[in-house]
Amino acid sequence: MSTQPTFGAGLWHFASYLDRYAVDGYGPARTTLENIALAGSVEDLSVVDLNYPFTPGVGLDEVKDALKAAGLGAIGITPEIYLRRWSRGAFTNPDPAARAAALDLMHEAAGVVRELGASYVKIWPGQDGWDYPFQVNHHDLWKLAVDGMRELAGAHPDLRFAIEYKPREPRVKMTWDSAARSILGIQQIGLDNVGVLLDFGHSLYGGESPADAAQLLIDYGLLYGMDVNDNLRGWDDDLVVGTVHLTEIFEFFYTLRINGWEGVWQLDQFPFREDPVDAARTSIRMLKTLYAALERLDYEGMKAAHAAQDAMAAHRLIQDALLRVEVA
Amino acid sequence: MSTQPTFGAGLWHFASYLDRYAVDGYGPARTTLENIALAGSVEDLSVVDLNYPFTPGVGLDEVKDALKAAGLGAIGITPEIYLRRWSRGAFTNPDPAARAAALDLMHEAAGVVRELGASYVKIWPGQDGWDYPFQVNHHDLWKLAVDGMRELAGAHPDLRFAIEYKPREPRVKMTWDSAARSILGIQQIGLDNVGVLLDFGHSLYGGESPADAAQLLIDYGLLYGMDVNDNLRGWDDDLVVGTVHLTEIFEFFYTLRINGWEGVWQLDQFPFREDPVDAARTSIRMLKTLYAALERLDYEGMKAAHAAQDAMAAHRLIQDALLRVEVA
Amino acid sequence: MSTQPTFGAGLWHFASYLDRYAVDGYGPARTTLENIALAGSVEDLSVVDLNYPFTPGVGLDEVKDALKAAGLGAIGITPEIYLRRWSRGAFTNPDPAARAAALDLMHEAAGVVRELGASYVKIWPGQDGWDYPFQVNHHDLWKLAVDGMRELAGAHPDLRFAIEYKPREPRVKMTWDSAARSILGIQQIGLDNVGVLLDFGHSLYGGESPADAAQLLIDYGLLYGMDVNDNLRGWDDDLVVGTVHLTEIFEFFYTLRINGWEGVWQLDQFPFREDPVDAARTSIRMLKTLYAALERLDYEGMKAAHAAQDAMAAHRLIQDALLRVEVA
Amino acid sequence: MSTQPTFGAGLWHFASYLDRYAVDGYGPARTTLENIALAGSVEDLSVVDLNYPFTPGVGLDEVKDALKAAGLGAIGITPEIYLRRWSRGAFTNPDPAARAAALDLMHEAAGVVRELGASYVKIWPGQDGWDYPFQVNHHDLWKLAVDGMRELAGAHPDLRFAIEYKPREPRVKMTWDSAARSILGIQQIGLDNVGVLLDFGHSLYGGESPADAAQLLIDYGLLYGMDVNDNLRGWDDDLVVGTVHLTEIFEFFYTLRINGWEGVWQLDQFPFREDPVDAARTSIRMLKTLYAALERLDYEGMKAAHAAQDAMAAHRLIQDALLRVEVA
Repeated sequence: MSTQPTFGAGLWHFASYLDRYAVDGYGPARTTLENIALAGSVEDLSVVDLNYPFTPGVGLDEVKDALKAAGLGAIGITPEIYLRRWSRGAFTNPDPAARAAALDLMHEAAGVVRELGASYVKIWPGQDGWDYPFQVNHHDLWKLAVDGMRELAGAHPDLRFAIEYKPREPRVKMTWDSAARSILGIQQIGLDNVGVLLDFGHSLYGGESPADAAQLLIDYGLLYGMDVNDNLRGWDDDLVVGTVHLTEIFEFFYTLRINGWEGVWQLDQFPFREDPVDAARTSIRMLKTLYAALERLDYEGMKAAHAAQDAMAAHRLIQDALLRVEVA
Repeated sequence: MSTQPTFGAGLWHFASYLDRYAVDGYGPARTTLENIALAGSVEDLSVVDLNYPFTPGVGLDEVKDALKAAGLGAIGITPEIYLRRWSRGAFTNPDPAARAAALDLMHEAAGVVRELGASYVKIWPGQDGWDYPFQVNHHDLWKLAVDGMRELAGAHPDLRFAIEYKPREPRVKMTWDSAARSILGIQQIGLDNVGVLLDFGHSLYGGESPADAAQLLIDYGLLYGMDVNDNLRGWDDDLVVGTVHLTEIFEFFYTLRINGWEGVWQLDQFPFREDPVDAARTSIRMLKTLYAALERLDYEGMKAAHAAQDAMAAHRLIQDALLRVEVA
Repeated sequence: MSTQPTFGAGLWHFASYLDRYAVDGYGPARTTLENIALAGSVEDLSVVDLNYPFTPGVGLDEVKDALKAAGLGAIGITPEIYLRRWSRGAFTNPDPAARAAALDLMHEAAGVVRELGASYVKIWPGQDGWDYPFQVNHHDLWKLAVDGMRELAGAHPDLRFAIEYKPREPRVKMTWDSAARSILGIQQIGLDNVGVLLDFGHSLYGGESPADAAQLLIDYGLLYGMDVNDNLRGWDDDLVVGTVHLTEIFEFFYTLRINGWEGVWQLDQFPFREDPVDAARTSIRMLKTLYAALERLDYEGMKAAHAAQDAMAAHRLIQDALLRVEVA
Repeated sequence: MSTQPTFGAGLWHFASYLDRYAVDGYGPARTTLENIALAGSVEDLSVVDLNYPFTPGVGLDEVKDALKAAGLGAIGITPEIYLRRWSRGAFTNPDPAARAAALDLMHEAAGVVRELGASYVKIWPGQDGWDYPFQVNHHDLWKLAVDGMRELAGAHPDLRFAIEYKPREPRVKMTWDSAARSILGIQQIGLDNVGVLLDFGHSLYGGESPADAAQLLIDYGLLYGMDVNDNLRGWDDDLVVGTVHLTEIFEFFYTLRINGWEGVWQLDQFPFREDPVDAARTSIRMLKTLYAALERLDYEGMKAAHAAQDAMAAHRLIQDALLRVEVA
């Protein structure tokens, strides 16, 4: 392999943020169009995943034009089914009217996917789940989660739906919380246009090995997409990729490579206090370094190390591929 | 319901322990027979799960006699596939000879289950997994785990095999690590005599809601058994049940009850520094208190609270059933 | 002791919230005056801790009147040194102008404490710290944190300043992160009007035992205040008190009682998706239940259990005081 | 700086291990002398920290000879105050006789330090603390911990005592659990021959930044020693250094360097399932790589990045020093 991977990013990488403390925001609000322009200024970025709805007043044609001007394609559309209307759940909201409104928004998002020629509707039901032990009937909650996804995906057999699982946040505990649980849910849905978007950080702080989760999803034919970032393993910090877990991000990309998975290398980061363009450039610098290390890696040696489950041998190979090793 | 549940315990509750620091043990070693005698001195205990092999020199007939003398039945047999021979894995050991030896031991244990009329062979592959990122090929490792279980269970269609999943320890990361992953593995095994033993503490520190995990396993018809204990949510501390997570243990038993699950309430605790009989009695005192609270609970009220996902209402009902509530 | 404790709450308990996903807020925004009115409707609430600045347009006199009308006193004022201006730090901001602006706001808040006759200025420097390993020089950062607090408290020798430590959030890692570190910092400040506000949940998810942290602070004469809530031990979930960690909250209040600490029992909760008045009432119901259990506890028995470090004996006493125990 | 650091290891790196599951051990037991011989076979290793007592039957003279033959010096002696006799605590044991026996062993160990010309007695009170909430009186427990250390260190004014703090294990919660708490305790001891041995992994999984902890201890003049390893941030896995947290270990060594701290770079690892010599060599290969990266680092650039708290700039410098960076 000699060509670089395609690089992408969630458009929110270029937004500004709020949280429960900095309620006036970490910076001035930016429109969808401004975010696209910023993304376009990152040289190696080819595609973006866009939140939907766009900023009020911004139309689909304007977005198309802005993407074209920025030299960007759309890989996915992420309907914001985690706003106030759905703070008690989108698919699993106890109120049927709220569930119906969530589906309406997702149907709209599906239309936008068609219009932009994107690869999938990304479904991230961040408010689906519970906060307190004993708050819900678990059978009923899970049924709502699965039935809603079936209704959605069944209505758009021409499109693909990628569920992004996450252990928690904003809900204290989320329904689609792991790779294995997501596979079970997709089996229950029973449609062939539902898969998973694997977020490296979600997997990591959920206690999975992201490489193992990727392998499992590939073995089930369900790895529709992935994005990367980093964290301290206790929360979805959405830090810049490779700043903490270098071995594990390298193993993750290694696993994709040996399975011949060739999708987009996507960033899902929240640079709250950093310049987003600088953060994206620093991230892609790291991704290129990881890619070059993959090119350099001794695959036969690694295969032998894995056959023996020899961690020391494997780590010496990683060091050689990735680090400026000094041996006396 | 007016009868008490049947209470059980892993026989290791009455053993003494070693760890990597107190290498001379937390107390003098005891034989299988001595452990049975201690278990028998706990009034409300009816069944035990026995490690296999028994203490060297102790035969099956002696064990039968000891159980009878103690007024105890055997609910399960747990082959010790986590001793030195299998420190690099039982099913997933890179050495085929070690894997074969593990199967031999498990076949023997299956024979003991038949002899004692126990309910299941409990399979806890604590050494199966990996320690380091990049140590294994995840596809191959999981295949070993699944194929080995299929070979084992396929050889004994008259018996039931209960896999006890756990996130980690002694291996830094274990293969059978969650309820959802276990269900996937059992689907891949494709036999109807393999299920799950759900350990409350494993589920809790693995980031699951134990009640949710129980519901999921019940919905798949796979909850073969369960045991309880407690921890600080970061490790398998195997503390006495109810000493930390009172709401969650109550929700766990509530979930079993509303599903009509009527198996044994079993203890899996390691009272390293406590008198094991005192610890078992204190535990059963708590279990009876929880059972009485279940009897007292307002089920209609809880159903309504759950339909509305009203955590505050649910918690007032829990308080009323469980606590000595004082309202001004 | 026969009188109930005084109950209080952070006024933000009655606000509505934003987070990085529900950017349109979990409910319509409410003014300081509306929050006070809601707090006033909770029967047993006597005092509140108020964020400062108040909602734009709301003056100090109006706040005084609203408090009076609501039958509430002010226990503390919390300057919002975590808004956008200070997203890269208040005391530890690399920009001296931002640090100066933070001090200005805190000086103003000190004036409000005087005007309202409150007990302390609460300092919660949530943006002080770092996000990435290798982002800061740790010596310099800590010096900024300590020097700034000294400058602030030194300017108001007639007032008390209570630092509320927290491990993280919104900053990935905070400077004042534990009880012990806070004591060291206060020693370095060298003034006698700086102490600590201990938040039960911060202590818990920071890996402390809240009871142990309280004891340590009391032994140093630095426990200026405390507030309670609950979480799942991995994040500052700010759940309703007693919904998860019943043993530990009871041990916390027990420790205060045996030391004769008689301050306000304060709530610091974020009922994102609950009615705040209902949540406050449910919380106080729990606090009264805990208080009654404290009244009922066998202190001599507990003293003996502690002398022997006998956890089983201690837990039977807790069960008797707190639970509706059933013994066959 | 052009000379390499001195490398050391806890002698237990070369031992074999037990745990609560593999009760027959991860390998055949080895004697102190055999462990020394293995350590001697690792080319770059200069010093070891020895557990005391030695294997029964092995005398001090034999140990001296073995060290000499292996070309090793003794940096410290670690009395095993965590064996069965002290499973309920060494300094904090409720039984005064157990406390006295622990002191006896530590006095003996002090004698061995003198005999071997080691740098310190290392005190790691792994059994001191508690398992259950509400098990102890926290004031009394901490007083026992501090008073005992004072008695010990006061009896040997010619020696140095290095406390190795750790959050937990084997005790569910340990008394000396963090850098800040240890400093407080040492202040209370009031002697100038008590300091801290900072274990990178303990600090990391205790929620500290190891670099920050090192800086704090240096600022108090208390960093007597340090050792390194790695883990997954949830437990003391004692993995080979640099296999997971490359950024943080590099920041740790950077912090030591800019403070002119020039002690031994010591390994505290438990290669349960690896060949210990292979693991030690792989570790030192990593340490040399880190040392070379330190030599290469742009210190002026890092200073500027730190003054601005510019994480992106800092990380590009780290990448340049440590990784085989590829920029298009």
